[in-house]
This record gives sequence, structure tokens and C-alpha cells, in this order.
Amino acid sequence: MRQEIPKATVARLPLYLRCLNMLAPGVTVISSDSLATMARVKPAQVRKDLSYISTIGVRGVGYDRHALRIAIRSVLGIDHVWSVVIVGVGNLGLALANYEGFAGAGFSIVGLYDTDESKIGTFVKGLRIRPLTDLEEDVDQLGVSMAILTTPAGSAQEAADEICRVGIRSILNFAPTMLQVPDDVEVRRVDLGKELQILSYYSQDPALPDSADGRRPTAADPNTSK
Amino acid sequence: MRQEIPKATVARLPLYLRCLNMLAPGVTVISSDSLATMARVKPAQVRKDLSYISTIGVRGVGYDRHALRIAIRSVLGIDHVWSVVIVGVGNLGLALANYEGFAGAGFSIVGLYDTDESKIGTFVKGLRIRPLTDLEEDVDQLGVSMAILTTPAGSAQEAADEICRVGIRSILNFAPTMLQVPDDVEVRRVDLGKELQILSYYSQDPALPDSADGRRPTAADPNTSK
Repeated sequence: MRQEIPKATVARLPLYLRCLNMLAPGVTVISSDSLATMARVKPAQVRKDLSYISTIGVRGVGYDRHALRIAIRSVLGIDHVWSVVIVGVGNLGLALANYEGFAGAGFSIVGLYDTDESKIGTFVKGLRIRPLTDLEEDVDQLGVSMAILTTPAGSAQEAADEICRVGIRSILNFAPTMLQVPDDVEVRRVDLGKELQILSYYSQDPALPDSADGRRPTAADPNTSK
Repeated sequence: MRQEIPKATVARLPLYLRCLNMLAPGVTVISSDSLATMARVKPAQVRKDLSYISTIGVRGVGYDRHALRIAIRSVLGIDHVWSVVIVGVGNLGLALANYEGFAGAGFSIVGLYDTDESKIGTFVKGLRIRPLTDLEEDVDQLGVSMAILTTPAGSAQEAADEICRVGIRSILNFAPTMLQVPDDVEVRRVDLGKELQILSYYSQDPALPDSADGRRPTAADPNTSK
């Protein structure tokens, strides 16, 4: 059952997939040790993670690269391309519309929406920015199943309400706010402040003593910053 | 020892911190059950995670909100503000320069750098975009300890080399590429394609049979998309 795959394993599957994609074309088999090295994960962790995938590794040989790739894509639900819209075409929306990494990951951006009259009708990457009121008819026509929400925090809930109303059930939320959505809608929040906090943890000088005072690395005193 | 805190726990600490920040002003104590509900994590997980933090929860009562907040900030190394620069002021760099969530998370954007002559000298949020060659003298003057890398993939390694050369030891990398850096430099990559893949997994219809074919939800056939 897919619900039984631990969250941390799910979060590592895209990493394994990327490693498999990066192998030289002629490589057909990869050992868990090699995959672990590439992914910077412990070999035992790789083996445990992949035990949730219905592909069979051969002891002492490794995994069939092609079969493993197909199996991971299937488990992640990206064995077909998802049609994705971007709601909110500010700087972040523009950046994501131009982001090179989505197509290879299994996602196609098929629509851009905004409420700003001055943006509507302009083109980004061949897509015309459309009013949010057009989303409803586009959802069926374009087979949209996922939305990236990049509005300002203040208008995120209103935009999310409309996204849910027209039947989209998956939202990647970049707005720094918590959304209220129906139970059957999946929201994944990308919290960029959190990413910096995690980086901060790993950036601390391990040579410093393990105390509340000694732990802090070269972080600047706020009063000395410009 | 901080190295012993599991990665998954480190990744949840910012979430607990955000929950603590969201509590009403008068709340001084929070139970692990309440924190678990807010964070959508199992109560046993919360208790285990917080057992790595040197604050003491009182059985049957809970955690002192203020003490727990201080302890988590200390463990994450954000008990002081980090001075951060953004290298690469395209759409994504602009979006991050304007991002509202960094200040509250413990980070202050103190400099913006680009190599594009047409951008240099223009202002964003009161900061003048400066040539990357100025980074070296600014690092000391502004106490810079972290860089957000938002160049195109093709110029990311060159920019990372310069960031490392001038002494910055922490990089949050948004460029869809792997960086080669010295061993003492921490890189955290934000992979937006991965975020969509994880969302895809959780968006699959749980009512569908658990087979490779049945798992896929309403993903559009690529051929029917515009």
C-alpha cells in the first residue's frame, strides 16, 4: 500500500531518480552502494528505501537501472506528464515559468494566471497570461491537475479557493501563509525560510563546543550589518 | 552533540518553531499533543524530536513555549541574525530579494550581486545591485556568512567558485545543477522539480488499486495538453 511508504523515503525517491538519470548511457545495473554514494545516503538506507519499491534488486549485483527508474516514477505518480498551472505571475511565478527543471521531472507548465490587468495578454515562454476567471474552462480543456501558487501572501487564500473550486486537487504553495483547503486537496508548502534554517544548522562550526553559546558560527551581529 | 540529531528531526525543527511563533501571545505552555496537531506530526514523533533539544518538557504539562523557542533557535544556529547575499538577480533572485519570510526566520538580505551590466546600480528593496567582483570586500564589511545562488545553471559553478573563494561557507543553491565545492562548504539545494514529485506522490488517488497502472491519478496525457 502506498500510504505505508515513510515520508522520508518518499522525499528521497526523487533524489534516487535524479541519480539514475545522471548515470552514463551505457550503465544498466547499479549497486545500492554506488547509488548511496551518488545520493550521499547510507547504503543501508538506500536498500531500505528501495524495499518499498516493487522492483527486485539482486544481491551482489544491484538494481536494473531501467526497471528501477520506471518503478520509482510509477510510485511517485510521474509515469505520465502532469499538466500544471502557475497562479500569480510575479517575480516568483515568472521564475518558475522559466525554470528548466520541471519538464525532466515529469511536469509541463500549460497555463499562467494572474488578476493584474496589465499582465494579462502578455506572453511568457509562449504562454499567454490569462485572467484567473479563465482557469475553470482551461482545467478540463488542458487536463490540469496541479497548481503552483505564487501570489502574494495576502491573496493566496482567495486564489486557493478558486483553484479548489474548479477541481484542482494538488497545490504547491510558495506563498508564506497556511492555506485552508478541503480535505481531499493536497497542499505542499515550499518554505524558503525553513530551507535557510536547515542550512544554518549544518553550517555551524562542529569544532565549537556543544553549548547554547558556543554553537553559533560566524553569524553576523545584526547591529554590525549595514 | 549536534551531529547526532537525525536529518529528519533537523528538517522538522523549523516547523515546530513556526508553530510556536503562531501561538496566541498569552500561551506560555504547550503540550506535545497540541504541538503535534499544529505541526501535523504524530505526538510520539514530536516528543522524540524534542528529546534532542536540551529543554525539559514536564510530563502531563508540556513545554515552556519561550524556553523551547530559544532552545530550537539555538540548535538551528539562528539565535543571531545571519547576513545573506543573493548572487544572480534574475526573476528568482528578485523574488527572493522581495520574499517576506526571511526576516522572521532569522535572515537578513544584505547584498545583491550580478554580472549583468544593465542590472548593476539599480535598486531592489533599498539594496543596490553590485558587480560580483565587489563580493569579496563586502563579505567582511557586512559580515556575510551565507549566499543564495540564483544564477542560471550554466553560470552557477563559476559563481559558486567565487562565493567559496571569498570565504562564504554556506550556500542555498536554486540553480538546477550539482555544485563542486570544498569540503568545508555546506550546500543545500532547493530542487523545485523534486517538490512537485513529492506532491505528485501524495496527490495520487488512494482509492485506486495499488498497482503500477492503477496508481496514476488524473494526470493528463501529454498529447492532449495544449
